[in-house]
Order: sequence, then structure tokens, then C-alpha cells
Amino acid sequence: MSAAALRIRAATADDAPLLHELVTALAVYEREPDAVKASVEDLRASLFGPGATAHALICERADDGHAGEAIGFAVYFFNYSTWLGRNGLYLEDLFVRPEHRGRGAGLALLRHLAGVAVERGCGRFEWAVLDWNQPAIDFYRAAGARPMDEWTVYRMDGQALRDFAAGGR
Amino acid sequence: MSAAALRIRAATADDAPLLHELVTALAVYEREPDAVKASVEDLRASLFGPGATAHALICERADDGHAGEAIGFAVYFFNYSTWLGRNGLYLEDLFVRPEHRGRGAGLALLRHLAGVAVERGCGRFEWAVLDWNQPAIDFYRAAGARPMDEWTVYRMDGQALRDFAAGGR
Repeated sequence: MSAAALRIRAATADDAPLLHELVTALAVYEREPDAVKASVEDLRASLFGPGATAHALICERADDGHAGEAIGFAVYFFNYSTWLGRNGLYLEDLFVRPEHRGRGAGLALLRHLAGVAVERGCGRFEWAVLDWNQPAIDFYRAAGARPMDEWTVYRMDGQALRDFAAGGR
Repeated sequence: MSAAALRIRAATADDAPLLHELVTALAVYEREPDAVKASVEDLRASLFGPGATAHALICERADDGHAGEAIGFAVYFFNYSTWLGRNGLYLEDLFVRPEHRGRGAGLALLRHLAGVAVERGCGRFEWAVLDWNQPAIDFYRAAGARPMDEWTVYRMDGQALRDFAAGGR
């Protein structure tokens, strides 16, 4: 099956249950099955409600007998670089159901997003990869991406965030 | 001088020249003096023009004789987590002029942004740190942040991005 047998479309509010299922499958793949705190309604409100800043794509099969079958998704938003004075495109999630890998869906989603980045005049297209996920690393390097090895993301959340905001620490 | 002698305010389009000067000073500090490709006009348009998604803060002195003197800045935007189904706050740049360190300006900016994150219902407050910047790492750890050690950001930009979007690779 070639990439021509795939269709990428923008997700809508009606896709919230599908997105929830795919997000959960991704968490299982990333060895964090309990990490999904979002409900279907949380995803619907945060991705499709007023003030939403993130965007979702669905990748479907388009071959006879399987048209419209969702096999993958991507969620992205626009980040920003002061050094470039431009937005960038940040890919938060990219996932293809394991049983549908090898059809080119991941590559099709990544290339689609690269096209969005170019169209929007984004200076960079970026995403984070788990250091143990060698198949993904190989895939991304082959596509022309390079690791930002000298940077580490720091995170403050939960009670630590509330305490710090309130003047603690 | 205490943190009470500081004022944090939202930057406006009139601050574009000041922001350009501060962004350039940050690039020098990060050992990349030629990294700033943005002009004053690029910053003005991308931060304050239609469709802008990133936000800037200025930290000023507020003590007698120095009121209104800008000593630091921060730029941030809202990222997104599918696992939480919520936005997060991502700090792209935080900088205090070297000659004004020790006044609490960095801590004041960080705490101000933590407050914005809590007010907006953000699930996370995140930023990237250069691995050699031990003073910053110590500061962030003391504030309650933790490193996302198992993740590496990959980047595609320039000709590699255009080639990939166009179907190459």
C-alpha cells in the first residue's frame, strides 16, 4: 500500500473520542499507561473549544474497503524563537497504531506537518523523542532532523508549581 | 534591594528595540553571538502583530532614581499536553543583564510566570536549559523544577525542512 492510499485531515470536535483512544494507545507504547489524565471532554474542550492553541490531524486509510479507518494522529502547536523572531511548529504527539505501521503513515504525517511549517513561514520544526526509542530516532535522523543534545527541558508541575507560584521556595 | 524594588510588566510594541537588545545580550551569554537573525521589526511583528502567539515580559527596577530601567525579560507561549488535555506554559527565554544579577529579577520573572501558569489552569511550566549552564540548573532545581532527562528535542530547519516538506528524503 502506498502513501497515496492514506488521507490526512484536520481533526474536529467529533474526533475527541477517537483522539482519546489514540492518545491512550500512545501512552501504552511509551510505557506510561497511567499517564493519560485527560478525559474525552478535556480533549474536546482544549483542542476544539474557545482559545484552543493546539491542533490535531488524523491519518486515515483511503484504500478500498478501509476508507476512513483512522490509523494515526498528530497534535501540534506553534512555538516561538526570539533568535529568529518567528514562530516554529512543535509536534507534541505523533502516533501510528502498531498494527498499521509500515504503510507510510508516520512519514506522511511528518511530511504534512513540515509542509504546514513551510507554508506558515516557521523557522523550525521540532519535537521531543524518548532516548530509548531507537526506531523513532533512526526515522527522524533519516528525515533530516538533528538532536538538540546540549539542551534539557526542566518541568515544574503539580504542588511544586502551586507552591512556587504562591511564593514558596 | 528586595524584589519589592522590581516591577514586571507586559511588553508592548514600543519595547521591540529593547527586546532586540536583550535578546542579543542573551545570545552573547549563551555563546552564540551570531544566532540572532531577528531584526527589531521581526520581533515587533511576531510578538505584537496579528496572530502573535508568544508573549513578552519586561522586568524593571522600581527603586528611586532607577525606576523604569529595564534589567531583564522573559518570552513565553502556551504549549500543550495530550496526556493532560490542557495547555502548559513554556518559557522560551529568561534573561537578566549580568550587571543586574543578584537583585532577584530572575526569580521574580520565574515566579510571575508560575503564577500565570496557575491562573490559566496550565498543567505544566517548562523551559529548556543548556547542559553547561550550572548556575541556571541549580537555580531551577532549587525552585522545584526537575529535568526531563530521558527526552531529546529533534529539530528540522532551513534547507533540510524545505527539502523534506517538498518530498525529498
